[in-house]
Amino acid sequence: MFQKTLLALTCLMGIQSAWAEKVKETRPTHEVIASAKAEDWRLIPQERLLYLNLDGNRTVVFELAPEFAPKSVEAIQSLAKNQFWDGLEVYRMQDNYVVQFGDANAVHHPDKAKKLPDGHQNPPAEFERPLEGLNVAWLADKDEWSEGVGFMDGFAVAKGEGKVWLTHCYGALGVGRDVAPDSGNGSELYVVTGHAPRYLDRNITLVGRVVYGMTHLSALPRGGMAEGGYAGFYQDPKEYTKVISVKVGTDVPAEQQLALEVMKTDSEVFSAMVETRRNRTGGWFVRQSNYTDVCNIAVPVRKAKS
Amino acid sequence: MFQKTLLALTCLMGIQSAWAEKVKETRPTHEVIASAKAEDWRLIPQERLLYLNLDGNRTVVFELAPEFAPKSVEAIQSLAKNQFWDGLEVYRMQDNYVVQFGDANAVHHPDKAKKLPDGHQNPPAEFERPLEGLNVAWLADKDEWSEGVGFMDGFAVAKGEGKVWLTHCYGALGVGRDVAPDSGNGSELYVVTGHAPRYLDRNITLVGRVVYGMTHLSALPRGGMAEGGYAGFYQDPKEYTKVISVKVGTDVPAEQQLALEVMKTDSEVFSAMVETRRNRTGGWFVRQSNYTDVCNIAVPVRKAKS
Repeated sequence: MFQKTLLALTCLMGIQSAWAEKVKETRPTHEVIASAKAEDWRLIPQERLLYLNLDGNRTVVFELAPEFAPKSVEAIQSLAKNQFWDGLEVYRMQDNYVVQFGDANAVHHPDKAKKLPDGHQNPPAEFERPLEGLNVAWLADKDEWSEGVGFMDGFAVAKGEGKVWLTHCYGALGVGRDVAPDSGNGSELYVVTGHAPRYLDRNITLVGRVVYGMTHLSALPRGGMAEGGYAGFYQDPKEYTKVISVKVGTDVPAEQQLALEVMKTDSEVFSAMVETRRNRTGGWFVRQSNYTDVCNIAVPVRKAKS
Repeated sequence: MFQKTLLALTCLMGIQSAWAEKVKETRPTHEVIASAKAEDWRLIPQERLLYLNLDGNRTVVFELAPEFAPKSVEAIQSLAKNQFWDGLEVYRMQDNYVVQFGDANAVHHPDKAKKLPDGHQNPPAEFERPLEGLNVAWLADKDEWSEGVGFMDGFAVAKGEGKVWLTHCYGALGVGRDVAPDSGNGSELYVVTGHAPRYLDRNITLVGRVVYGMTHLSALPRGGMAEGGYAGFYQDPKEYTKVISVKVGTDVPAEQQLALEVMKTDSEVFSAMVETRRNRTGGWFVRQSNYTDVCNIAVPVRKAKS
């Protein structure tokens, strides 16, 4: 049932003219992706990658976005080089919202919190940046949360008032903070695991997104469900998932580095792929949306051919 | 960090006048919910509930919406009364999309599929219904997927062209189908577990939503991730989660029935709660959205006081 649509390459019959006008791309998404040429892909340099290794040989890889949050990225890379997270934990998983990792004590028992490395500089709040100087591929579709949305080097972004910012789409990586906007020190990180909480946009610093291993986070048991539990925090330290290490890609042994390529979001093939998301075809769909939400578009990532 | 906002009841200081004009409700969400009176809640009758019992004593409860899909709901209730699902399985979990249960053979080996009960009638496609006759509380906010969105008795809905339909928000329950719009027989059911795939709206029949136990579905291991895997289907039957039973509420032993109350979505308190989602306050937020996506609003459900 249901799933066959995704596989079926049935004929498009009885296309009405109004429909045909809207649909600019009738190939299925996977065919469009398969048509991308070598130059439509960007190899992510290891220095932009952050490897999170969880207990049980589970690896999650993030691409960092220093273009949007340079000081926060620097702070995170510095913490990783100081092995700050090694031995800490995933201490929160709130269903349909976020998973969070770092030092549970920093949240529950600040007096017992792990000391930040000497000389650690708290980054400023980096909620947005000027629009100038960025090569953004803007979508044609409106977005009620902002003045426009698009993609910059694979990152979903929004704009308004001459500024541009990373959006809280599924898989976005951010820096936890306290009440003061600049109170995030970079050590408590969260990842969006539910329906996009776009109301967080411009309220907290996003620093990157998951490019590999998302399901190691999204399928974790939910916390805080017990009576008195709150906001996804695990009630018992036994529920924590142990963080073995967090490393900058260049510090990962060569044989463990992943060569990941992201589809260039300023390419024609990516535009064509977006069209397949705006109007889904292939026989199963009886009605086309002629619209897409920026968070409904998964930017293709693949392992480079070796 | 991050989470403290949800708990903190800090003073609102330095409110700018433009901001103050937008914000009509400054109480935190949980206070607004706590202010609801007894008459602001609706007890869900057992005949509208569907209980899914998974292996390991895990119970998920759906509220069905016969106002939107009468024939599909009837088919599902009939299958439940015939114990059709008992002993079948959850055979699909695609990350950030849907979980699906029923008869894996119906998908992978149709020749071995479990026979539908004698006299089973396939329901028609029930993708939308006329707008008349429904008491919908429409949101003030625009929605780019439709002509408007709101809530009807706790169900998120959208409208257009004189029709109204259930939306594919997190937790929505639908009837899997093949390529023909009326090919869903009611036996293969799916639940939205990711960022709302609104492009499915009006393409497939939705019949209800999860009102209890969502995390028993959303935290299931993801399927189809192995090389050659596809669309979340578990590659090995050992990965299936066994369905012990699916029952209409009235067929559940009284001591196992759950008395669940849903906040009335045509109440003043619900409107006030929506306002707290449109503009989040409480000190942590430095910027208000003055907007909400219909799928960002979780309609409160609670166990009735006994």
